[in-house]
Amino acid sequence: MSKSYFRKAVDAMSAYVPGEQPKIVNLVKINTNENPYPPAPGVSEVIRNFNPERLRLYPKSDCDDVVRVIADLNNVETDMVIAGNGSDDILNIAMRCFCSPNLPLACFKPSYSLYPVLAAMQEAQVRQIALNDDFSIPENAVEQAAGANLLIIARPNAPTGNSFPMSQIRKIIEDFDGIVLIDEAYADFADDNCMSLVKEYDNLMISRTMSKSYALAGLRFGYGVAAKTLIDGMMKIRDSYNVDMLTQEIARAAFLDQDYLAKTKNTILATRARLERELSALGFSYVKSQANFLFASPPDRDGKRFFDELRQNSIIVRYFPGAVTGCYVRISVGSDTEIERLLTVAQRMYK
Amino acid sequence: MSKSYFRKAVDAMSAYVPGEQPKIVNLVKINTNENPYPPAPGVSEVIRNFNPERLRLYPKSDCDDVVRVIADLNNVETDMVIAGNGSDDILNIAMRCFCSPNLPLACFKPSYSLYPVLAAMQEAQVRQIALNDDFSIPENAVEQAAGANLLIIARPNAPTGNSFPMSQIRKIIEDFDGIVLIDEAYADFADDNCMSLVKEYDNLMISRTMSKSYALAGLRFGYGVAAKTLIDGMMKIRDSYNVDMLTQEIARAAFLDQDYLAKTKNTILATRARLERELSALGFSYVKSQANFLFASPPDRDGKRFFDELRQNSIIVRYFPGAVTGCYVRISVGSDTEIERLLTVAQRMYK
Repeated sequence: MSKSYFRKAVDAMSAYVPGEQPKIVNLVKINTNENPYPPAPGVSEVIRNFNPERLRLYPKSDCDDVVRVIADLNNVETDMVIAGNGSDDILNIAMRCFCSPNLPLACFKPSYSLYPVLAAMQEAQVRQIALNDDFSIPENAVEQAAGANLLIIARPNAPTGNSFPMSQIRKIIEDFDGIVLIDEAYADFADDNCMSLVKEYDNLMISRTMSKSYALAGLRFGYGVAAKTLIDGMMKIRDSYNVDMLTQEIARAAFLDQDYLAKTKNTILATRARLERELSALGFSYVKSQANFLFASPPDRDGKRFFDELRQNSIIVRYFPGAVTGCYVRISVGSDTEIERLLTVAQRMYK
Repeated sequence: MSKSYFRKAVDAMSAYVPGEQPKIVNLVKINTNENPYPPAPGVSEVIRNFNPERLRLYPKSDCDDVVRVIADLNNVETDMVIAGNGSDDILNIAMRCFCSPNLPLACFKPSYSLYPVLAAMQEAQVRQIALNDDFSIPENAVEQAAGANLLIIARPNAPTGNSFPMSQIRKIIEDFDGIVLIDEAYADFADDNCMSLVKEYDNLMISRTMSKSYALAGLRFGYGVAAKTLIDGMMKIRDSYNVDMLTQEIARAAFLDQDYLAKTKNTILATRARLERELSALGFSYVKSQANFLFASPPDRDGKRFFDELRQNSIIVRYFPGAVTGCYVRISVGSDTEIERLLTVAQRMYK
């Protein structure tokens, strides 16, 4: 076709590139922050007992059973919750609600690289605010974000893994003239989270996913929590049947097993501590992690070389090119066996 | 919150209202064109054999296994197919690609009421082209659509159920300066479809769903087929993981059982013929249907009265208020037992 009918913004933009899902035998896949442990036992039960004939009917549009559980767990009202086809769906809906050519997005750099891609779809300008050298938020972040209508903060941040002080977050929410969206994809691995703040601030939204802590990346379920006025508007943009029937029921079962969540979380945190310790001993520096991954820099600060050598050994981590991020690789906290394989390569290279 | 941070378009718009999913005992639910028969036996098998541990990993971003089956079935290349979280996802992606404040949508009236809602999200103007009294497409449709960048044609149309002549569709695709999207949600129940035209026209896109003919409304799977250049652009807007792992595998199994599809289709068409015949005998008029529903008008042309009386009897059909549509109700072709219950009420009212 000689003529493009696409919106100019679509022709101009590049797609988000997700972490690779290579098909290599005996692969150690620790590149997309998946959980090394299976989902809660209740998930198997839901699948085993599911009557497939029910699939002929539409799912619940309001996802009310799972939304009620989410509301209970987070101590909010059900009308403060929106369910999504993964938390990317929630981010997407938020971007369509709050960003446009006249309503810029503000976000940090480095952070989740999907944010600017979603903004490009809306033809929204992006104010990328550079994090400090230690990946903390600069004091004048709100000044730098001024004029933006939506400010997204990944907390814990990706790919760096650090968190930001709650007092600083509060101040940002209070000072920023727009919506603050805190992407808590990794919050279950952190010491604290911002969920309770949604009842204090009506310009705050929290997004969560089941892909990481609940070991349900294959499922696609995420949710947003915010004041009812925000949820009401987002509901207009949400597809009426964005979450399928089985997903709603599996998600509910997984949410109900908080003991299992705590157990796998603790195992992952123990492995994370070990990874920090052993890489440190080899002369790596790393960002103190509040997530299920570690942003670690080898002794020679050459992230690419370490990434390539790991790949040669069928170990896939994630590498983000760039002056700052290129000194690091992001290592998902896999099982102990997986981490041992990575450490073996690291020992060979740097000991 | 005193100030709204929403885009003005979001504040101004109303959400799409899906057909109700009431919780009534012994309900005959023939309001959302669901299939009265279960999905193919292969669906149970996939669910029974699925290892839930796999859900810890992300699904295939490119959905390649199911996309290959779709390509084979429709005799196109795999790079001409995009998978969606229901065909509403495909419609949504198309709208984000081709509509904006400067790029209007054209669609027909009456037709699927989601189209103008999706256009409103894009702040796109909508040229609603009134169908003729017999719900055929007016001769000057392309003239009326001129200036629009996207023209959506539901074929068979909803809620009317009729189709449009292939020669007229061809002429529209040739004459319209923009993308023509043919929504074939109901095409499996029709005498013909436009799939083969995607290889002739690079401004044509076809969307399909598994919600109706495949009895998988609960699953959320749809797809689009078009020239590679169109698919490439739409892929930028699609979420990287828009279709979950189980859904991809269930969809694939259902596509592979074309015999089962044909069998349930034929049963539904037989029931549709019976419904047409028996309502006719009671003095109803109806639109000759190419779908799994019938747009029927009672002898007194009072769609609302018939709808209300059916509801009193726990039979839910769909009623669309309006000067033209208000004379009708849309009856999904359910099982013979379900249709008999509707006919009993109709006989009592109109015989």
